[in-house]
Amino acid sequence: MNFRAELIAVGTELLLGNIANTDAQFVSEALSSVGVDVLYHTAVGDNAQRLQAVTDIARRRADLIIYIGGLGPTYDDVTKNIVAQAFGRELVFHPEILEEIRHCFDTVFRRPMPECNRQQACLPAGCEVFHNPVGTAPGCCFEEDGVTVMMLPGVPHECRYMVEHQVLPWLRRRSKQVILSRDIRIFGLSEPQVQELLAPLMNDAVNPSLAPYAKTGEVMLRMTAKAESEAACAKLMEPMLQEVRRLLGDYCYGENIAGLEHAVVALLREKHRTCAAAESCTGGLIAKRITDVPGASAVFRGGVVSYTNEVKAAVLGVPQALLGTYGAVSEPVAAAMADGARRITGADLAVSVTGVAGPDRDDRGNEVGTVFVGLSTPEGTSVQHLSLGTGRTRVRVTAAHHALDMIRRYLADLDFEKSNAQ
Amino acid sequence: MNFRAELIAVGTELLLGNIANTDAQFVSEALSSVGVDVLYHTAVGDNAQRLQAVTDIARRRADLIIYIGGLGPTYDDVTKNIVAQAFGRELVFHPEILEEIRHCFDTVFRRPMPECNRQQACLPAGCEVFHNPVGTAPGCCFEEDGVTVMMLPGVPHECRYMVEHQVLPWLRRRSKQVILSRDIRIFGLSEPQVQELLAPLMNDAVNPSLAPYAKTGEVMLRMTAKAESEAACAKLMEPMLQEVRRLLGDYCYGENIAGLEHAVVALLREKHRTCAAAESCTGGLIAKRITDVPGASAVFRGGVVSYTNEVKAAVLGVPQALLGTYGAVSEPVAAAMADGARRITGADLAVSVTGVAGPDRDDRGNEVGTVFVGLSTPEGTSVQHLSLGTGRTRVRVTAAHHALDMIRRYLADLDFEKSNAQ
Repeated sequence: MNFRAELIAVGTELLLGNIANTDAQFVSEALSSVGVDVLYHTAVGDNAQRLQAVTDIARRRADLIIYIGGLGPTYDDVTKNIVAQAFGRELVFHPEILEEIRHCFDTVFRRPMPECNRQQACLPAGCEVFHNPVGTAPGCCFEEDGVTVMMLPGVPHECRYMVEHQVLPWLRRRSKQVILSRDIRIFGLSEPQVQELLAPLMNDAVNPSLAPYAKTGEVMLRMTAKAESEAACAKLMEPMLQEVRRLLGDYCYGENIAGLEHAVVALLREKHRTCAAAESCTGGLIAKRITDVPGASAVFRGGVVSYTNEVKAAVLGVPQALLGTYGAVSEPVAAAMADGARRITGADLAVSVTGVAGPDRDDRGNEVGTVFVGLSTPEGTSVQHLSLGTGRTRVRVTAAHHALDMIRRYLADLDFEKSNAQ
Repeated sequence: MNFRAELIAVGTELLLGNIANTDAQFVSEALSSVGVDVLYHTAVGDNAQRLQAVTDIARRRADLIIYIGGLGPTYDDVTKNIVAQAFGRELVFHPEILEEIRHCFDTVFRRPMPECNRQQACLPAGCEVFHNPVGTAPGCCFEEDGVTVMMLPGVPHECRYMVEHQVLPWLRRRSKQVILSRDIRIFGLSEPQVQELLAPLMNDAVNPSLAPYAKTGEVMLRMTAKAESEAACAKLMEPMLQEVRRLLGDYCYGENIAGLEHAVVALLREKHRTCAAAESCTGGLIAKRITDVPGASAVFRGGVVSYTNEVKAAVLGVPQALLGTYGAVSEPVAAAMADGARRITGADLAVSVTGVAGPDRDDRGNEVGTVFVGLSTPEGTSVQHLSLGTGRTRVRVTAAHHALDMIRRYLADLDFEKSNAQ
């Protein structure tokens, strides 16, 4: 399949900057995953004349045009009329689609269908209907004059549903080639370090390809192979995967997972352990991230956000003497916080974070970015001393990464001072 | 100023769907705020020929073209060469910019400047330089053949810095008109309720205009006025603002602020009160949101994430009898959690949340979305019983909104059962 695709997003709210064009990202990622080259994104307002003009341009430079948005029931939803006209097709009323729309109002919205929604049941003559069980705007697909045209709803969850259930199967049916990707998640190395480590592999990688993506405080590598079947892709990837795993060692915390908290919850479940958190500068972020994972309740017992010395002392049992002598941002206090969280929650393990997220230094003159991360286990308590630079959000996110990585390393029997490298 | 603008984002990562085009959103919002009409967004890969082609199209339909991205030091950063060539300008080396870039390496990156960064000091002849103190890629602006051309770096924080410090001042200097916006934040009414309440105002509103935006669990209204000065804009907006405030009453929790947590922190500071949180299904989200606000440490004492009954009992002191009789997701437990958090942290007020975020019902058969939110104060303890529907993230975010709104209403001497309306 050698489609040259253009995405045309329709909606004045995009041009006003009220929303980001996340549909374009999602659709592009999906198309890339089946080997379609996306060459252009265009966004235009709810304006018939300009939509007509960008359509004329797109059909000269692309052979797959995907319109996103403007399929609603009101007068400013212009996509269907303009596209049908541009490609010389009549709009045809589909009684069965009207029933689907009515059904959506009856069961999801629980109110009578307004008359204006009737026009959503009209689609270009001869098109393949992309049914929409999660909303009222059906999509469609037709071919005209060597160009394949698709129309998708703009509401993000409807767009995603249709891409997954209609667009990708449609493209796969026409393809002799399968694309398989694998995301390798790395913590403890910077992007330049990953590039240096993997330079020979990345430079020579064509199929599979290998590319790094920096995220806040961590790095992701994506390996992508093209072949005639999933099995053939996997076979192509296997030698490079092994080499990447060997080079990265335990800096790789998982593959095809969404973040460190997922690795931690999976390891806790596997090892039948529970954990807890005592958080100062991260302010609940570690607990929030762990409990973002569905099923976390089986392994996460709880946490304390100790934003004052009084709470550190009264709730976590941090000795006043330590707070007085060393200050809240110190190694002994981090250790006592982790021990306290483990004791009061009854968890097997507890992490702690105390530090200066900024914007200002603390009252003892500790620099912004000074963070201590502790881990309390049945075998003892360890503390890492980190300097994470500036930026309140970045410091908090990166400190939470380090705490989660300490749990991961402990559970996987790895040296857990190593994540200090970053 | 009647610019017709087109944004051209340059970067293959956009077309692969690796990142969303958030720069386009930010730049569009900024341009709208000074009255520039953005008519098109285009995204194209790091490809000289296609960048040339979209440039030819853009200069026929726009008189302000803003390029975003592709200004880096490597061979695939093509923007500057193609744009300079398309508009017939030589690239000229600026020694003072090279010094700025070197300075950035010395002080921010703390490593020697690679030779390839030298070319970032070359800019089109006769341009106005947009200096970049937060990165290495300077931007620029020039006019050619009736078209104003700007180039901005693609790294989001560099792009934003340059828009705020260079692009907006540049546009304001050329404008006879000022645009002023005011964001009115609403909690406790759905978007249809807001539209019904304000329909007569919104339909007739031209200058100022008034438009609603739905966010997860809350609604934002944006009022925008155009006039010859800020004072004139404010004067235009004043009668409508008063009418909107009158109609919304205490459902409006703030204007030009970023969220409920900001209203809560501001009120706590103003009233010299402190607060705490006891969280079950929100898992630290309330603490995280409050501590997202710089300066929260003056008013937030801490929190407990009690994800198990044992932590509710041992840390928060919730009586075992209550947990046994009513279950963790119940009104008495929510009240005891809030009281416990207030007691152990020594805060003036404490909120609590216990509920079922999903994906599954709890072991007592409580539906997903069943949530109890408690508020403990020196005058007594109140609990709201909510049914928040499905969707783990949505339930958690909306439950946190309700808890924050209870604090706000208490501190502002409002009826705090009222946020139940939603």
